Amino acid sequence: MGKIICAGLGPGDPSLMSVKADQTIRLATQIAYFRKRGQPGRARTIVSELLAPGVTEYPMEYPVTTELPVDSLEYQVKLSAFYEHWTTTLLNISKTENVAVLCEGDPFFYGSFMHLYVRLKNYVSIEVIPGIPGMTGCWGAIGQPLTWGDDVLSVVMGTLPEDKLTRHIAQADALVVMKIGRHLAKVRQALATTGRSKEAWLVTYGTMAQESIVRLQDFGETRCPYFSLVVVHGHGRRPQWPGGEAI
Amino acid sequence: MGKIICAGLGPGDPSLMSVKADQTIRLATQIAYFRKRGQPGRARTIVSELLAPGVTEYPMEYPVTTELPVDSLEYQVKLSAFYEHWTTTLLNISKTENVAVLCEGDPFFYGSFMHLYVRLKNYVSIEVIPGIPGMTGCWGAIGQPLTWGDDVLSVVMGTLPEDKLTRHIAQADALVVMKIGRHLAKVRQALATTGRSKEAWLVTYGTMAQESIVRLQDFGETRCPYFSLVVVHGHGRRPQWPGGEAI
Repeated sequence: MGKIICAGLGPGDPSLMSVKADQTIRLATQIAYFRKRGQPGRARTIVSELLAPGVTEYPMEYPVTTELPVDSLEYQVKLSAFYEHWTTTLLNISKTENVAVLCEGDPFFYGSFMHLYVRLKNYVSIEVIPGIPGMTGCWGAIGQPLTWGDDVLSVVMGTLPEDKLTRHIAQADALVVMKIGRHLAKVRQALATTGRSKEAWLVTYGTMAQESIVRLQDFGETRCPYFSLVVVHGHGRRPQWPGGEAI
Repeated sequence: MGKIICAGLGPGDPSLMSVKADQTIRLATQIAYFRKRGQPGRARTIVSELLAPGVTEYPMEYPVTTELPVDSLEYQVKLSAFYEHWTTTLLNISKTENVAVLCEGDPFFYGSFMHLYVRLKNYVSIEVIPGIPGMTGCWGAIGQPLTWGDDVLSVVMGTLPEDKLTRHIAQADALVVMKIGRHLAKVRQALATTGRSKEAWLVTYGTMAQESIVRLQDFGETRCPYFSLVVVHGHGRRPQWPGGEAI
């Protein structure tokens, strides 16, 4: 009987993967990863230099991504069937071999693997290797400390309704907004309402080759890629010293 | 001219350090790390198997930790002089050699290194290698997905006043409470007020040899170690499937 090992890949730079995930992937004979149909897949790209010759690959292609509203019945039925299919498939493979499932960032932090995990966990041994969350790679790429002292960090999704988004942003010291994509205008509005627009950074493909870091107010587009997030830094209990500049 | 490389060590298990941090530490000839006076130091313990023979070590011993209130003038004066001293010392070393500064978790997430970073950054080249935050190691150790769909994650410090703590907990879907220590009774009260006591886990020394994971309501003590945190899981947009159990 084999087991399933979900390896958190971290934010994108392969050298930011944990030693344990790196070794797991190098030794894997069976790997599975999510991807959008017709794409090579971000997870697969991150590990491309690590894979052993002859590894068997299982690309798990989402039947739908943004074509349908996530709360529609059709979306839920399709995604559910997709996760059921891969639950069965991975369970079958794990009867004789270990399978490494790749997951960008940290697997338990908004990761697709969670939908397989809850279906599989009572039937097979699963190990989950944590990873540096994408947001941690992104705030690191900006080159400023995120949270000081008693700062509250709030992580919110751009998919939330504007009033909820605004309420959470108003109460946060440090802030991360994920899942922005086509919700950018709403996120900008919520930041403006709470007076935080000037402090906001937009990080796209953080730690990856195409990394881009700009002040949100200098970003002229109305949409941004899926791998984008907004960061606002906290200011709690700041260091005090002569000549110190504002961070 | 050398440079300063701050290596995020991750949550505690050395194999959860990034490949880049691991390599940086193995190659280092000069390392510096924070520790409490009279202790070996958590950061130093994590890297003990990695250090090259003959490495020069600079333990940076806090002049004070919990003996004084953090907002007292005496605390601030002592800490400020301490950071000034090590800024000068690291700057001097970096004139001829690279120095690796060790930092548990992620350096920009409530890390002591940030106080050196803001003092040093205009005078020397600094590279900061992100790490898996301690909280990510802890929620992974519990073995349940933390955040689903549109969940809001709030990270709050146990050092906050109870009313502020309560207000943030009331609005959070998923929750992490850090810096608990002697604030445990207050954290318990805020969780009770918001009806979240039963869902709360207490993780101590997550991913380390002494790891302990208990339901907070089953934890009988009135204080807990510094390396403890409380985790409450989010429940947003849950997977729906026949026979699915509550997570």
